[in-house]
Amino acid sequence: METIQTLLSHRTIREYKNQEVPQTVLDDILAAAVRGSTTGNMQLYSIIVTRDESMKKQLAPLHFNQKLVTEAPLLLTFCADFNRFNKWCEYRGVEPVYDNFLSFNWALIDAVIAAQNACIAAEAHGLGICYLGTTNYTADKIIDLLNLPKGVVPITAISVGYPKTMPELTDRLPIEAVVHQETYKDYDKESIDSLFAEKEALPSSKQLLEENQLESLPQIFVEKRYTKKDNVHFSKVFFEVLKKQGFFNHEI
Amino acid sequence: METIQTLLSHRTIREYKNQEVPQTVLDDILAAAVRGSTTGNMQLYSIIVTRDESMKKQLAPLHFNQKLVTEAPLLLTFCADFNRFNKWCEYRGVEPVYDNFLSFNWALIDAVIAAQNACIAAEAHGLGICYLGTTNYTADKIIDLLNLPKGVVPITAISVGYPKTMPELTDRLPIEAVVHQETYKDYDKESIDSLFAEKEALPSSKQLLEENQLESLPQIFVEKRYTKKDNVHFSKVFFEVLKKQGFFNHEI
Repeated sequence: METIQTLLSHRTIREYKNQEVPQTVLDDILAAAVRGSTTGNMQLYSIIVTRDESMKKQLAPLHFNQKLVTEAPLLLTFCADFNRFNKWCEYRGVEPVYDNFLSFNWALIDAVIAAQNACIAAEAHGLGICYLGTTNYTADKIIDLLNLPKGVVPITAISVGYPKTMPELTDRLPIEAVVHQETYKDYDKESIDSLFAEKEALPSSKQLLEENQLESLPQIFVEKRYTKKDNVHFSKVFFEVLKKQGFFNHEI
Repeated sequence: METIQTLLSHRTIREYKNQEVPQTVLDDILAAAVRGSTTGNMQLYSIIVTRDESMKKQLAPLHFNQKLVTEAPLLLTFCADFNRFNKWCEYRGVEPVYDNFLSFNWALIDAVIAAQNACIAAEAHGLGICYLGTTNYTADKIIDLLNLPKGVVPITAISVGYPKTMPELTDRLPIEAVVHQETYKDYDKESIDSLFAEKEALPSSKQLLEENQLESLPQIFVEKRYTKKDNVHFSKVFFEVLKKQGFFNHEI
């Protein structure tokens, strides 16, 4: 079944051919994004399309200068958006009541569903994608650059283009590591050892430890990739963004 | 193209045939969920499978007694999950540093990507789905029922089953309402009037206003569906859940 095959073939693609995404393909991607589920059919998201070279250059540092930001022909930034809905309320003489954390979560989930539909449509067309998690880190600066008004928060972004090469599938934990029957079965040392054994035994994992002169994979995450200092700093940045964009007008 | 057709054919299905989801189909759904993108390949989500009748009955009130909760053969609850990753760190002698809002957002986005992949795989198999937004509202009670430990927060759930009937496609705003080229183009009264004209002119919209004796569609949302009192109350509930589950161990 083609759809299942598309879903099971996902790779993160970070290197792209120098080849534009045709407008008809982009139209399919956006149509798929818009068809995804949305809270109460409110469509609480916006999609910013970046193709302009100068905009890509300005976005690059906000995504920590990952090369794919300037090299991909297309970037899509998915934002939680209550601005449009609020304006609709206001122009109809109704005071909106969505300046709160719950409403932000509806919009965030809407934005991610739209993003994932866009990814799958792109992949069905032979394109490759990469999610840019940096979108949360520099949400304040992305707001300035993309001119996002109050009520709008960038949630995630994807780069899109034709893959230069097709890497192997990324390793995943066994299905039973993430699936629980009826209630959550917590992990003891034995189950962690067993569920992470394959990942820890990968040649790429061993190489990573050698290169970094570290003893265990979790150290790579805690000491190198996602450190406490960065996590706490960017948590504050992102939380401030939510407040500034109007999603915490209540006690917390 | 089958995948694009699947994406463009999404309907919310609330009524199901009395017919089980075969295990092989569930296996495809879960395999697709697990193949979705995930922050740093950390797989920061868990999926709770509900098929037991007694569990469905206990879940029903937590989803505001929507009939589909007991009538669907299958429910999947998608949780942001740092518990498994934290335990991996601890059993390898590394102190995890993910008790913060940024890390919660990674896990939340991971959970929604997995959920949307599951939906598309289900729909490719001829099943219908409905997202249960109530998952955020009663996250505290779902945690108790599903036995979710610290580090785990329910984000969304879907009901899955064979559709009893196939409704029309839901209306959507025109694509240009949600897509912006290069920078955000804010909405003035004229653009709101134009972009919402078709929605406001739908016979179903007019019927809704008559039944509720209201004058404009936004009133349906603000006064009936998503009221200020509910929004503020459940915002506090959900924010308390994040704190209790260990994602705000920093100043805010």
